[in-house]
Amino acid sequence: MVMGAYVSYGTGHHAASWRHPSSDTTATRNLDHYVEVARYAEERLFDTLFLSDAPAVFNDDQAGFGGRVTFFEPLTLLSALAMVTEHIGLVATSSTTYKEPYNLAREYASLDIISRGRAAWNLVTTSKLAAARNLGLPAHPAHAERYERANEFIDIVCRLWDTWEDDAFPADKAEGQFYDPAKRHRLRHRGRVFSLDAELNVSRPPQGYPLIVQAGSSEAGRELAARTAEMVFTAQPDMESAVAFAQDLDRRASRHPRLNPDIIILPGLTVYAGRTEKEAREKVEELQALIRPEFGLSMLSDLVGGYDLSGCDIEGPLPQLPPSNANTSRRALIEKLAYEDGLNIRQLYERMTTSRGHMTLIGTYDFVTDEIVRWFENGAADGFNIMPPLLPESLRDFSENILPRLQHKGVFKQKYRPGTLREKLGLRRPENQYVTETVTTDERGQHHDHAR
Amino acid sequence: MVMGAYVSYGTGHHAASWRHPSSDTTATRNLDHYVEVARYAEERLFDTLFLSDAPAVFNDDQAGFGGRVTFFEPLTLLSALAMVTEHIGLVATSSTTYKEPYNLAREYASLDIISRGRAAWNLVTTSKLAAARNLGLPAHPAHAERYERANEFIDIVCRLWDTWEDDAFPADKAEGQFYDPAKRHRLRHRGRVFSLDAELNVSRPPQGYPLIVQAGSSEAGRELAARTAEMVFTAQPDMESAVAFAQDLDRRASRHPRLNPDIIILPGLTVYAGRTEKEAREKVEELQALIRPEFGLSMLSDLVGGYDLSGCDIEGPLPQLPPSNANTSRRALIEKLAYEDGLNIRQLYERMTTSRGHMTLIGTYDFVTDEIVRWFENGAADGFNIMPPLLPESLRDFSENILPRLQHKGVFKQKYRPGTLREKLGLRRPENQYVTETVTTDERGQHHDHAR
Repeated sequence: MVMGAYVSYGTGHHAASWRHPSSDTTATRNLDHYVEVARYAEERLFDTLFLSDAPAVFNDDQAGFGGRVTFFEPLTLLSALAMVTEHIGLVATSSTTYKEPYNLAREYASLDIISRGRAAWNLVTTSKLAAARNLGLPAHPAHAERYERANEFIDIVCRLWDTWEDDAFPADKAEGQFYDPAKRHRLRHRGRVFSLDAELNVSRPPQGYPLIVQAGSSEAGRELAARTAEMVFTAQPDMESAVAFAQDLDRRASRHPRLNPDIIILPGLTVYAGRTEKEAREKVEELQALIRPEFGLSMLSDLVGGYDLSGCDIEGPLPQLPPSNANTSRRALIEKLAYEDGLNIRQLYERMTTSRGHMTLIGTYDFVTDEIVRWFENGAADGFNIMPPLLPESLRDFSENILPRLQHKGVFKQKYRPGTLREKLGLRRPENQYVTETVTTDERGQHHDHAR
Repeated sequence: MVMGAYVSYGTGHHAASWRHPSSDTTATRNLDHYVEVARYAEERLFDTLFLSDAPAVFNDDQAGFGGRVTFFEPLTLLSALAMVTEHIGLVATSSTTYKEPYNLAREYASLDIISRGRAAWNLVTTSKLAAARNLGLPAHPAHAERYERANEFIDIVCRLWDTWEDDAFPADKAEGQFYDPAKRHRLRHRGRVFSLDAELNVSRPPQGYPLIVQAGSSEAGRELAARTAEMVFTAQPDMESAVAFAQDLDRRASRHPRLNPDIIILPGLTVYAGRTEKEAREKVEELQALIRPEFGLSMLSDLVGGYDLSGCDIEGPLPQLPPSNANTSRRALIEKLAYEDGLNIRQLYERMTTSRGHMTLIGTYDFVTDEIVRWFENGAADGFNIMPPLLPESLRDFSENILPRLQHKGVFKQKYRPGTLREKLGLRRPENQYVTETVTTDERGQHHDHAR
């Protein structure tokens, strides 16, 4: 079972966690906080440390009630954390909509070298409308357009990581030959979105390619994941939908030639657990009591795609929403909860502040352990991205009480395997595409030019 | 006297340094090498660690003779090195032509937080023609166009660093108010190059703004530096031209309202020194003997802007070069050496392989020390960016033999000052422009909109 520690929001995943007496309100800009969390997650054998990202202020609450606003840029933060950890995988999120393939390929290759093969790229197309304003685009590109770009983008990035073969640098001092020109490859790409002739200026990453992670759940997102992702992070509210999601993704994946046939599926999971159910409930209520209604409305507005709900009665129903170009799957979930299940606005934001649409388990340590095992054994998940409501407290609670139970049941490891993140997860290392192609280039035509 | 350690090229600044018996040929992709160099430079009280950069393969020698090819992405590498150092400034180069202001502002703000106020941005417009091909631009933009973009770019980036006032986060747990909306500022920028409405998602950097460094020597480059730079890195072949450059820059700077009136000018300096002059000469010759002519030609081709010289006789003169859109000041220097001083092609590339146009001092430790003091006392330099021909060897040689002599003469410090890089260098911290403007906004018109 694969376990990720989702630590994007400094004080924890619950939207009001910063108000908790134990919280360090400077956490999102406090390096020491992240060093402590990263070291602890490694000590407890988490497989990955996960940072979400968007080029915009988070939870765009204009009134100042929300505690998740500014944060570290993830590639720089994970490069720093690579120096205080040895085993844990480092997952940085980056947007294909708001970065350039060349710059992104460099950054992840560099992080992979710095971390000795522990880098992972969570590919997103970004659902924040403010990102377009921040970057100076006329508008946030439409969903289909974002995914068209993402599809070309990832192919370019993988090719860029192949620019230099693994053994391209004999560095023969006597002969004066540093690299072997036959092992240097230029990508000639002419696509609908990108047109470039590019050679990366970073050597091939230790993992070949950093691990490819994705989080999109739309039709286009699933297709992209089926073709290219090795790990998928997903929001699933219950086991049935998680099983359906996993089966759908497996079916799609089987239609593509894949180096690693199985996709590691990690639903997000928020846990409130205690020795008794009452103790667990108290942990929820303690945090829920800290939500100001103004903030709940503001957060919900953001989650449905920037539609302003601030004038609405929180005890009333969610109004019919105009079309939006933002995250469609999270919005669809909120609409389902509102229009089919009949949750009012307050109930909707309370649901969202605890979990943002991810599964939430509330109960005794034994109950939570059993639920996790049940999901795992029923093919709903290969593991979980744990979203601690309160950091570091809930991470410690989970690690000290749930993980040992999972180890006892034999579903969670007792120590790290050696090697890179791919090796630890049992994933194959990608071969260089220029090398594997040389025998078949003539048949397949000169789609990519092997210059020189 | 300010001392920088220029460590971009893993095995050292001499183009054939990788062939030296002492060299680690994996240095440009070896984190341990950089950790050792960074720690050593700090132990020896260097003020800054300097990484040059371009989004392209370095020294674009297609035949494989040159050892400077792939390298770390600088922001990720310096974030890692921030964790193993405490005092040394971390200068990362980034291009205004091939990055977006929002992404760049985030990365440097994040590095400044990670390093507790030691980040510096060396702004370049990039002179490598391959960068355009790598990023998919139709052509490398013209010099004037690059500088027009750079001028707007830096103003945007500084404003983005001001998005959140230093005390924007009261984080009042009792009231549930995390930030003060009056201390959050949106930049509304409508320029010739950029048009955006942006708010940074990183808190204000510890230094206010990371230190602004520049390296352009053209007319447009000097004007940009005079208006915005706090430190200038420059290639000056002799003291007279360095004095003229410094005077010109001071004159230009005096015409601009500047927070820190004086620009810290650091010429690049390559030193070959020994107990005797003979010993120093041997150190040069040992490295010069390692240059293959094919590589010398290839490197020179690259330095004059991508014009292919591979068919030329190395004992003959430099042919008349067609116009180029690449680094104009380095090319002008090469043309001067060729057409006015009569250097043939071999002499040109030998000059360039040792120094790339920067000052080179060859002689006894005492001679070199005296020359450094002479430059310093004659207003040619506020210090130097030391470009060790061989790493770490030449850095050790300089640190053990020249630095103590400079300390003895009272021109180099005995220990670091406390505080951020700005504080160590005696530079003022920039105030937030939104704060200083509030009194005068009406008079100056609504150039920047304080939207919220």
